[in-house]
Amino acid sequence: MSNFVPTAASIPPKDVKLRLQEIPNLPPNLHPLNPLVFLLRAAQIYPQKVALIHSDVIHPVVYNFGVWAQRIQNLAYALIKFGIKPGDRVGVIAPNCPLIADAHHGVLAARAIVTPINTRLKPSEVEYIIEHSSCSLLLVDHECVHLVKSTKVPVIVSNDTGLADDPYEVFLSDGRVFSGERGWPGLSAEADENAGAVLCYTSGTTGRPKGVLTTLRGSYLAAIANAFEGQMNRHSTYLWILPMFHAAGWTFPWANVFSFATQITLRTVNYTHIWRHFLHSGVTHYCAAPTVQIGIVNGPQAKKPPQDITAIIAGAAPTAHLIAKLEETGIRPVHVYGLTETYGPFTRNFEQESWSNLSLQERARLMARQGHAFATAEEVRVVHATEGDGDEPLRDVPRDGKTVGEIVTRGNIVMKEYFRDPEATRKAFAGGSFHSGDLAVWHPDGAVAIMDRSKDIIISGGENASSLAIEQELSSHPHVLEVSVVARSHIKWGERPMAFVVLHPQHVSKWRNRQSAFEKELKEHAKQRLPGFACPEWVEIRSELPKTSTGKILKTKLRNVVSKL
Amino acid sequence: MSNFVPTAASIPPKDVKLRLQEIPNLPPNLHPLNPLVFLLRAAQIYPQKVALIHSDVIHPVVYNFGVWAQRIQNLAYALIKFGIKPGDRVGVIAPNCPLIADAHHGVLAARAIVTPINTRLKPSEVEYIIEHSSCSLLLVDHECVHLVKSTKVPVIVSNDTGLADDPYEVFLSDGRVFSGERGWPGLSAEADENAGAVLCYTSGTTGRPKGVLTTLRGSYLAAIANAFEGQMNRHSTYLWILPMFHAAGWTFPWANVFSFATQITLRTVNYTHIWRHFLHSGVTHYCAAPTVQIGIVNGPQAKKPPQDITAIIAGAAPTAHLIAKLEETGIRPVHVYGLTETYGPFTRNFEQESWSNLSLQERARLMARQGHAFATAEEVRVVHATEGDGDEPLRDVPRDGKTVGEIVTRGNIVMKEYFRDPEATRKAFAGGSFHSGDLAVWHPDGAVAIMDRSKDIIISGGENASSLAIEQELSSHPHVLEVSVVARSHIKWGERPMAFVVLHPQHVSKWRNRQSAFEKELKEHAKQRLPGFACPEWVEIRSELPKTSTGKILKTKLRNVVSKL
Repeated sequence: MSNFVPTAASIPPKDVKLRLQEIPNLPPNLHPLNPLVFLLRAAQIYPQKVALIHSDVIHPVVYNFGVWAQRIQNLAYALIKFGIKPGDRVGVIAPNCPLIADAHHGVLAARAIVTPINTRLKPSEVEYIIEHSSCSLLLVDHECVHLVKSTKVPVIVSNDTGLADDPYEVFLSDGRVFSGERGWPGLSAEADENAGAVLCYTSGTTGRPKGVLTTLRGSYLAAIANAFEGQMNRHSTYLWILPMFHAAGWTFPWANVFSFATQITLRTVNYTHIWRHFLHSGVTHYCAAPTVQIGIVNGPQAKKPPQDITAIIAGAAPTAHLIAKLEETGIRPVHVYGLTETYGPFTRNFEQESWSNLSLQERARLMARQGHAFATAEEVRVVHATEGDGDEPLRDVPRDGKTVGEIVTRGNIVMKEYFRDPEATRKAFAGGSFHSGDLAVWHPDGAVAIMDRSKDIIISGGENASSLAIEQELSSHPHVLEVSVVARSHIKWGERPMAFVVLHPQHVSKWRNRQSAFEKELKEHAKQRLPGFACPEWVEIRSELPKTSTGKILKTKLRNVVSKL
Repeated sequence: MSNFVPTAASIPPKDVKLRLQEIPNLPPNLHPLNPLVFLLRAAQIYPQKVALIHSDVIHPVVYNFGVWAQRIQNLAYALIKFGIKPGDRVGVIAPNCPLIADAHHGVLAARAIVTPINTRLKPSEVEYIIEHSSCSLLLVDHECVHLVKSTKVPVIVSNDTGLADDPYEVFLSDGRVFSGERGWPGLSAEADENAGAVLCYTSGTTGRPKGVLTTLRGSYLAAIANAFEGQMNRHSTYLWILPMFHAAGWTFPWANVFSFATQITLRTVNYTHIWRHFLHSGVTHYCAAPTVQIGIVNGPQAKKPPQDITAIIAGAAPTAHLIAKLEETGIRPVHVYGLTETYGPFTRNFEQESWSNLSLQERARLMARQGHAFATAEEVRVVHATEGDGDEPLRDVPRDGKTVGEIVTRGNIVMKEYFRDPEATRKAFAGGSFHSGDLAVWHPDGAVAIMDRSKDIIISGGENASSLAIEQELSSHPHVLEVSVVARSHIKWGERPMAFVVLHPQHVSKWRNRQSAFEKELKEHAKQRLPGFACPEWVEIRSELPKTSTGKILKTKLRNVVSKL
């Protein structure tokens, strides 16, 4: 990588001015919040510091903040030259790589809205999103071109080489030429901090995906919260395992720059690459869902890295087993919770001093809670399910750790709207707060703990059994690597839990061809920990579980399996 | 302290709701920024964690976040009961103690404006501020009562005991009764994030003090910036050496709570107390001007504390000598710069990797620069002095490290206005940016470096000599503890520098009755480091230098001395 030379157009002029055009008539003490300013500060203060490393490819690249900022400026000018106007949507379809990292800043610099599209969708789904968002232009990684074959929207392809003849680099270089060296002061700053920043489509398991529109103000505040909660700084190195297209990478594209951290982009979740970076690239932070975390700590390369690593975990609660494995490996787990509609994380499990005296099992049970509003988030509540038309005020459930309600939230870390879907927006904001759709209890200490999405509750003999709680207990069995529990209909009880289990690699051989013996053992394990109605009636060993592109277990697929049994 | 029991009114009810009244018609994704929410979060997440320690008094007190939040709620209700309306000013005159810490949150909770008044002013100056701000009520520490003898404004006195019969405690308890246990949800939240938060009067050396009005939004963003730049977290302990009445303690009253840090309040700058806390109370952060820092590192108790300490330095640049002494003692210096008008710090000296190879002298010279905009601050520029009526656009000086101009800034970390002084406000914001009045050069890397306030420039033989630069060089002499340089008129050269020196205690005896020998030695030291026109013509040894209540050297007093020579 040491012989990589950025394109000529990537090199900033010697007297670069890192300041946007002045906004007319702005009060001197009010500046619209915009995460783009983080990049300008980083390029000003640490121009020589490495901003972006993309190493595990045929053509590795590395950019310092000075060069990277110039490339992003070029992108902004290229978009403007193309005809992008403020508020337009610019789609980006790419795995983690410089293209999508650039887009999170460059599209904002053109005052347009970044529209990251999940690379693992089907072409028809991608086409739906392109049409619904009415993107004016698509920035597409070479491996994703098949997804946009039928689109009429113009496409810029990146071959992910960083070489001058790469079509994406040509696009950037043309932008530089078009700029006429007006630089940053030639770009107008967005005067409205509530203007759109990102339009992310949720990968809904049912119905059409919905477009979640976030704002500049929200992105700014959420990014700072993530940087603060992660205690990031200029010595931090962030490894991109979480796809950046997922909820705009939980605002880490900006949180990293706010912290002056170095970012390493990984195109795929490759445990060999991950461990090489953990052990040799000084990685200090990464985000991933528990399923990916399980893969990481169980990788054959796993060993204690020389530096401290903070693992930011969301998507599901980490199990006791996972927490123990992470801590053993010298990785500090931070459990956060959020949705695309909340810019990624908006709650955090805040560890208490007193927990250090508890057993791992007890501590893990507390750490599995989604916790409290984090840094710049506001109100997080658990409310009774609303009936009627959604205009009645929300009523808190008692803080008893038992009564199940829905998590709602409001404040700056909440999306602006579902794009072009006023009906869905109205429903989501019924009673004046955003409805997460996640069912939870509220503990006396104010921590929320997700029980289940309503469809994940198993109604067994008239009792509500939480599939999540059952999974937590089953995963404490030392031979269980991953487990997912869904409802299966039962003549006597209505529903009963069925568990799908992936065994830990070390124990696979022990149970080979002994499915029923394992089933018996796991049921015994459950009986000691769970009420009868919550014990799994069926256990099936699987070599893997079906997952979404972002690593969430696809319970819908398991329910399909179950419905045919 | 272990036997201290908070008053009955300080104990929160078991089912305390840490949420203000809902603001009607608020969009769910917009919440007015308000630093008061930090307290509500801290009391929710860490109710048992120690928030405030006030130990070095006859009646020491300690409050955890749960109790402290209740006390602040009581204060808000007490103010409302008294008749305080949104936007009213509530004065507070106190050294660092719970009263003034409470006021920074409780007055905001009543939607009023905190008006901290410098305790070292003369009664007539205090009276001027009370009248100019038209405070409706004064919260006054028992030691400051003499300052408000002639006022007609009602006064609540605190004897700083925390005991039930303390008049301040009676005031709080009455507030609790008045609340009728409506709690936080009985208090309305401020809907306008640009409403006033703090009104701080600058201790101007000439003319009447001006009232600097800040906003809730600015306080929120500045506090987060200070917490982030200081890398504070729930394991931090902040020692109050800087007076809280000084620019609202640089927003640390909120930055500490945002970080869930423990605060220790010290009524006076007492080096014995400071070192006891450094060595035995786990202090991790404090703020102070260099003169105070000098006193700290030269204290007889000084030794390496068991934990890392970050010293946030502002008010003047730290000298090489001070930096070396701090680092020797295991204290990490962070040099920031700001004014009351900028919520305290808004720039920071950002250390560069490459500096670690430099000599201490070279590193200190770089660390003395005021640097770049920090976390949530925006544009910092150095511009040519404006002539005319202030409507012409500001012109940047070249970034050559030589051309002297004025530091200007704009953005969210800039005051709203000078209270009831539109003319001063207009002048301060000429050209659309706030004028700091500090003269500086702009280095090619974008760092600003203060040369001097215009009146501190010495015009020696037609050359502009920076008294600051001269002080930097003289202070590198190992026997110099503190030095201040002012202009003294000279028949031939117009002006020439005169240096006032405080010797390091260890070297006082060496130079006793040898004033002229020391003068010769220091001039020799200067000649090797400074151009001829900048070498001091006169040197005077003093046992101490005149200082403001906030530790800034009073050059006006030295100029008075000089004018009579």
